Amino acid sequence: MDLIIKNGTIVTAKESFVADIAVKDGKIACIGSNLSMEAAKTVDATGKLVLPGAIDAHTHLAMPFGGTVSADGYLSGTRAAACGGVTTVFDYPMQRKGKGILGTIESRKAMCDPEACVDYAFHCIITDLNGGELLEEFQASVDSGVTSFKCFFVYKKEGMMVDDGTFIKILLKAKEVGAITNIHAENPDVIDLNIEKFLKEGKTSAWYHYLSRPEFVEAEADKRAVHWAKSVEAPLYIVHMADKEGLLAAVEAKTAGHPIFIETCPQYLEFTNEVYKREDGRNFVCSPPIKGQESQDALWDAIKKGTIDTVATDHCPFQSYEKDWGKDDFTKIPNGCAGVENLYPYMLAAANSGKISFNRAVELCSTNPAKIFGCDTKGSLTVGKDADIVIYDKEKDFTISVNTMHSDYDHTIWEGKKLHGYPVQTYVRGRMVYDNGEFTGEPGYGQFVKRKTALS
Amino acid sequence: MDLIIKNGTIVTAKESFVADIAVKDGKIACIGSNLSMEAAKTVDATGKLVLPGAIDAHTHLAMPFGGTVSADGYLSGTRAAACGGVTTVFDYPMQRKGKGILGTIESRKAMCDPEACVDYAFHCIITDLNGGELLEEFQASVDSGVTSFKCFFVYKKEGMMVDDGTFIKILLKAKEVGAITNIHAENPDVIDLNIEKFLKEGKTSAWYHYLSRPEFVEAEADKRAVHWAKSVEAPLYIVHMADKEGLLAAVEAKTAGHPIFIETCPQYLEFTNEVYKREDGRNFVCSPPIKGQESQDALWDAIKKGTIDTVATDHCPFQSYEKDWGKDDFTKIPNGCAGVENLYPYMLAAANSGKISFNRAVELCSTNPAKIFGCDTKGSLTVGKDADIVIYDKEKDFTISVNTMHSDYDHTIWEGKKLHGYPVQTYVRGRMVYDNGEFTGEPGYGQFVKRKTALS
Amino acid sequence: MDLIIKNGTIVTAKESFVADIAVKDGKIACIGSNLSMEAAKTVDATGKLVLPGAIDAHTHLAMPFGGTVSADGYLSGTRAAACGGVTTVFDYPMQRKGKGILGTIESRKAMCDPEACVDYAFHCIITDLNGGELLEEFQASVDSGVTSFKCFFVYKKEGMMVDDGTFIKILLKAKEVGAITNIHAENPDVIDLNIEKFLKEGKTSAWYHYLSRPEFVEAEADKRAVHWAKSVEAPLYIVHMADKEGLLAAVEAKTAGHPIFIETCPQYLEFTNEVYKREDGRNFVCSPPIKGQESQDALWDAIKKGTIDTVATDHCPFQSYEKDWGKDDFTKIPNGCAGVENLYPYMLAAANSGKISFNRAVELCSTNPAKIFGCDTKGSLTVGKDADIVIYDKEKDFTISVNTMHSDYDHTIWEGKKLHGYPVQTYVRGRMVYDNGEFTGEPGYGQFVKRKTALS
Amino acid sequence: MDLIIKNGTIVTAKESFVADIAVKDGKIACIGSNLSMEAAKTVDATGKLVLPGAIDAHTHLAMPFGGTVSADGYLSGTRAAACGGVTTVFDYPMQRKGKGILGTIESRKAMCDPEACVDYAFHCIITDLNGGELLEEFQASVDSGVTSFKCFFVYKKEGMMVDDGTFIKILLKAKEVGAITNIHAENPDVIDLNIEKFLKEGKTSAWYHYLSRPEFVEAEADKRAVHWAKSVEAPLYIVHMADKEGLLAAVEAKTAGHPIFIETCPQYLEFTNEVYKREDGRNFVCSPPIKGQESQDALWDAIKKGTIDTVATDHCPFQSYEKDWGKDDFTKIPNGCAGVENLYPYMLAAANSGKISFNRAVELCSTNPAKIFGCDTKGSLTVGKDADIVIYDKEKDFTISVNTMHSDYDHTIWEGKKLHGYPVQTYVRGRMVYDNGEFTGEPGYGQFVKRKTALS
Repeated sequence: MDLIIKNGTIVTAKESFVADIAVKDGKIACIGSNLSMEAAKTVDATGKLVLPGAIDAHTHLAMPFGGTVSADGYLSGTRAAACGGVTTVFDYPMQRKGKGILGTIESRKAMCDPEACVDYAFHCIITDLNGGELLEEFQASVDSGVTSFKCFFVYKKEGMMVDDGTFIKILLKAKEVGAITNIHAENPDVIDLNIEKFLKEGKTSAWYHYLSRPEFVEAEADKRAVHWAKSVEAPLYIVHMADKEGLLAAVEAKTAGHPIFIETCPQYLEFTNEVYKREDGRNFVCSPPIKGQESQDALWDAIKKGTIDTVATDHCPFQSYEKDWGKDDFTKIPNGCAGVENLYPYMLAAANSGKISFNRAVELCSTNPAKIFGCDTKGSLTVGKDADIVIYDKEKDFTISVNTMHSDYDHTIWEGKKLHGYPVQTYVRGRMVYDNGEFTGEPGYGQFVKRKTALS
Repeated sequence: MDLIIKNGTIVTAKESFVADIAVKDGKIACIGSNLSMEAAKTVDATGKLVLPGAIDAHTHLAMPFGGTVSADGYLSGTRAAACGGVTTVFDYPMQRKGKGILGTIESRKAMCDPEACVDYAFHCIITDLNGGELLEEFQASVDSGVTSFKCFFVYKKEGMMVDDGTFIKILLKAKEVGAITNIHAENPDVIDLNIEKFLKEGKTSAWYHYLSRPEFVEAEADKRAVHWAKSVEAPLYIVHMADKEGLLAAVEAKTAGHPIFIETCPQYLEFTNEVYKREDGRNFVCSPPIKGQESQDALWDAIKKGTIDTVATDHCPFQSYEKDWGKDDFTKIPNGCAGVENLYPYMLAAANSGKISFNRAVELCSTNPAKIFGCDTKGSLTVGKDADIVIYDKEKDFTISVNTMHSDYDHTIWEGKKLHGYPVQTYVRGRMVYDNGEFTGEPGYGQFVKRKTALS
Repeated sequence: MDLIIKNGTIVTAKESFVADIAVKDGKIACIGSNLSMEAAKTVDATGKLVLPGAIDAHTHLAMPFGGTVSADGYLSGTRAAACGGVTTVFDYPMQRKGKGILGTIESRKAMCDPEACVDYAFHCIITDLNGGELLEEFQASVDSGVTSFKCFFVYKKEGMMVDDGTFIKILLKAKEVGAITNIHAENPDVIDLNIEKFLKEGKTSAWYHYLSRPEFVEAEADKRAVHWAKSVEAPLYIVHMADKEGLLAAVEAKTAGHPIFIETCPQYLEFTNEVYKREDGRNFVCSPPIKGQESQDALWDAIKKGTIDTVATDHCPFQSYEKDWGKDDFTKIPNGCAGVENLYPYMLAAANSGKISFNRAVELCSTNPAKIFGCDTKGSLTVGKDADIVIYDKEKDFTISVNTMHSDYDHTIWEGKKLHGYPVQTYVRGRMVYDNGEFTGEPGYGQFVKRKTALS
Repeated sequence: MDLIIKNGTIVTAKESFVADIAVKDGKIACIGSNLSMEAAKTVDATGKLVLPGAIDAHTHLAMPFGGTVSADGYLSGTRAAACGGVTTVFDYPMQRKGKGILGTIESRKAMCDPEACVDYAFHCIITDLNGGELLEEFQASVDSGVTSFKCFFVYKKEGMMVDDGTFIKILLKAKEVGAITNIHAENPDVIDLNIEKFLKEGKTSAWYHYLSRPEFVEAEADKRAVHWAKSVEAPLYIVHMADKEGLLAAVEAKTAGHPIFIETCPQYLEFTNEVYKREDGRNFVCSPPIKGQESQDALWDAIKKGTIDTVATDHCPFQSYEKDWGKDDFTKIPNGCAGVENLYPYMLAAANSGKISFNRAVELCSTNPAKIFGCDTKGSLTVGKDADIVIYDKEKDFTISVNTMHSDYDHTIWEGKKLHGYPVQTYVRGRMVYDNGEFTGEPGYGQFVKRKTALS
């Protein structure tokens, strides 16, 4: 064996039990009591939890937005991932009018491959069907291992929005080829109406970012997305759900048996819209904005009941000077915040405090995204799967700070957050990439995850 | 007294009782047992029902559409109304980009006034806010007695659609001035997607009119309209509800206490989408199209339970040669069918057969539209109200035919429909305008109904 | 004419309008503008409201309970009714094991007839089917004008409870003969469990009366009653609904189209369970007990939405010395409070303050009980109906006090309650029985109301 | 190692993967790819499924009922279990008035222990609290490993019913000591009413067994049980759910977050009430009876959606001559049918046909009952758990017949049922007890399962 992690408490989405776990050729070879095989390396995990690595199903690395590029490129973003126990990140190449899917993917793969410190996968954003031609490329996308697409109901002026007819075409074609469609659900016309009104009234602070896209503006689009998916019987994955009303509508459809999947993010679970009234409110600006307490409560309730499927980050940090562009005009603030390194620690700390079980944290951050998105070699500690493993110390205390993170941004909305319990080691396919505060991986080690069809 | 109708069974939205009804100066002066006053004219209604005249809250007279004009102008349309027991019709002047509300109304009033055989009121269709300026005119519209506006979620290419932001502005301003907003709810992008697909596939019959705007396409827009109205707490009136899913969503909001009102039409209650498979399917083409049996059943269920508020006609007939334009291309069929003369006879026959009570028929066709749209002098047989009266013979048999109608169109979707029970006389403000098969009114007698604020 | 009430604002369940109202032979003969007929008596009601008399569908007069008899007999109870604008009271004769229905009714009629100051009707309480024989008497009961029966799900030890099988037999037989079944819904076993526990623990104050029959104890029985009525498709009238959960279940069934009717009482609309913590908490002891704020809010919400059908009083007062029996043991407090004189003033004051419309107050207190219980000569100001009329002064201020009431009890839970607006005259079949503070009627004037079948 | 099962597809509630599984001292010691350890016995499971043994949470062995005893005693019942892949059976000792829990359990343990061929656990039926004293024994019951109790809402005359007050006491005490309460939900009064009526009318065939306890009679009791459990916030397990309305009510509460668990049985999934019209209808008589198609569809829907938690058998067969007692009077038919040997084959065949996944079949029949009832050593193929293993051949065809079963009864409702796929071997704690058609175990090998607290 290459590696044996001994005597930890293995946590799956269903159970927890003490056992040894042995790795060979990057795969989990064996799980057993007191394994007596020889191994190149042995790690004692007595008293620790042994978890599958997290899959962050939602990151934007080196993402062009608002006249700049998100602060974390592929190297720093995946380095941060490794140090937060994330062993696979999903990134979003964006197809543009006149361009194809495969080309879009290939050019991002070329950027990512030499830099990736953990494994990576792609959802492809679709912005224009090129008169219908683009649909012909969906099968090839799936064949190449990209089995999910994403659409925006917003960003109309930016040329990224798809209308309802286009959305349905994508839902149907995606279903046909075994892919799943992701949706960013907000209503552009109502946002524009509000922005126009607020700017005219001289209301320019970050608080008006929230007020221009409040709960009901997101809820409408959530409900519309769910309606179309139900009506044409296609699977749907709603990214970064942040409001109660939309959540309940999605849950209702899901409970009725429709293949609707729901993602939320740690920022929606930790903060409320009150942050936008702070002096540094602009640093929290992301879209959809963080909502009120009632929405946060509903999200936690769904986390507990099992009706939210995944937690991912929408990681898309910008530097302070970029955020400052919007000091006097909230529409000029680049949208997005840091998160990839905080996802797993945050959700596991919630488990450690008794809010949810560790099994549920594993399900939300690893098992479910793997299953929904067809990562058949990832998502659980099972014989034959990739040895993507996190060792977690329930007693370690940690305070998040920009200084203790492994990213390139210069501030974080999580500054000062104290966590009880923290990851101590991360392994990607059996190789240690993080060890107690230090990144130990190397750029280029991360591989593209060629996925199976969705929900398989 | 000018008129006494003796010994009929007076039917209100709540009760039925035998009494005499006396009219003076166009108003109901007295209701009593065996009235002994003198009167210029006495009518014996023994064994007959005495009902308030119907209010058809939805007609399109002299309406330009699809390169022609609807077959009934103000004269023939209101003549037909009189002969069907409708004593007030609502018509839809349409504001256009660059034009104002008052001017639009005035020019239609000028057309209608010399021709109207029964009283008339206007909803004003809003298609463009002229950069917001138009909102300034809403108060003046209300002051002039036009206290309702209408928007389309469809007819995008025709420049009639409003987007969600504009719709919200209208909802809010209408609420502020005491008006109510009507919505025609279907989703344009999905209709266009379907039309494009069907035409490409050579599917051009009237059946594809239905298939391009099936249940879920209307339902989405119904739900969206309800969502915005609820979110901004403004009253909403959904015209010609035709599908079950949208209906249930509207009823749910209504039951929860939101001021949502629902109209359906006789064509949705009598026919199903099967008509579009007929040789003459194009004659039934209207938008939204008639839906399947499940929707028809749900509409009747809501009629019975009281969750649908009004029945109106969407009267908008076209001549056969115009309908024929779409023989080989359903998109070329002018949308609309005849109905104003059939509304009250149809709903009263439903009552006569026991499907609903006569009280409920009166409520749907007269009392409710009067109340919702602020016609404070109309809608019930009450002392002080306009003497808009229909005498109905429960035993009279009648077969609808283009020959027995009093309109200008050359065919009707109701051809051959047998009704048990039929109106025998109609009075508008005490003047008889219909007598047993014959129109006895005169063009120009009808007056503009200056309405109070909605829901007052 | 015998009487003309001139120039008041007549209020029906649907409308309000100014008119004169003429009475002849105890019936409404005519309603009109400026009636010029001669009349023996003319009353000027300018600026006043003219309303149909209230029907209190729930009183217990001369009711044996807890070793005593309720403080108001037929004379004082109906005198109080007259002075509160109630022109018909429903009383509850109780059939007992081995006894028949007709005999039970006749013996109460004999007591009531010489004393009644307003008209009266009976629901018959059924406690035992006498081996099934009693069912044979249901038709005769209906024929005699008693077209409603009542069952208790509680008072097991008192021999008044019916089990679920008996209840179904009654529901079915009542439906067959055109009657409707009333239910007092609480769960006896759980009440007994709680009482036993509290007494054992020495918890004996009035607060434990509430705690022994809290919200969920009533809710269970409400839901069970609704379940059986739905299942066997029989009409059901739930008396004194006091809790939110049961209310919502009943409303859900009702909204789905089942003939479920719901009554609540002023005490549940005005007070909360907090009263049981008061020194004089025992005076408020009734069953079901008054619930918490959430239930009160739900009841008002249903009042406003129209899902509660009637408001009645459960009038059943006891003297202070009798209430005092339970000073040290809440199980010894006779259950019941005063109310018949407060019903209409309370609900009309709610209308006067804008909480509901006057039309809705009339519907709840008069039109609906008449319709549900088949009082075809009562419940509205319509030509041909009994001239049961209340004249109401919207500006008159009134403070409820035991001294200003016209009953025989020595205290009232309504003491000190200020009302803006109050009845100034009451007429029963055209005869004035109350005039501005004074009872002007006479014992024995009241007649038994021979009712039609329910819901007819 | 004592045993290695090589190369099968291991199926858990979440995943399926090919691996070897090694057993030592009755426990699962290791799961891995190509394990190279030595083992006393090696079984090649290539191409086969390797599953955790089923847990039948509901059997009545040697059960006195209707003047006889159920046909399977502990020996034949557990032998049949072994041959059907059931490695743990739950039996129901019944406490009786005046008797205690521990004594009841001990005396059944004494009967079972020498005969048990597979492991066994007990739910204790509570019929009388002995004036409250019995509650004092609940903690001792839990300490002894019996952490669930059962109540009947029926069998009133048989002295087995508990009233609502007693049920609440049990719910609360069970919760306090970490146990869960099971409920058999039907309404006794309504059943009695129906039986009385049918017998009087000479309606005596098995069809009237169904008609005397139709859907709504079960539904009422389901809803009542759920109501009390919710109200007092105690966990509840509803046994043998058979009707749609009750199911939906339980699912609604469960979905809202209440700890309500639902069991159904294969007979309700396979048959409908039509069987009671058959000549041999009495053989299908069990309580609750099998319901109509709509209920069956709802049960399967819930099986698929995951809202039903477990499938168990209510195994309680009687001999033909005993069933014949009720030939001319359905009330004399002993209630109950065979099932323990058919449970796992039936549900796995459903998986094999694609109706559900194998993971879901495992979850329903093994993982969930283990989890709900605190069988911490059972329910999954995980390192450290008991080696209760079934090897399943997806290609093996099997026809159920009384001749191929391993029980003592002389007929089965499953006669002639063809299954595609069948268990080929069963292991209890590593010992083979069934091999391809033959029972290979021995009486007395089975052990009492000392359980942890419920839901732990």
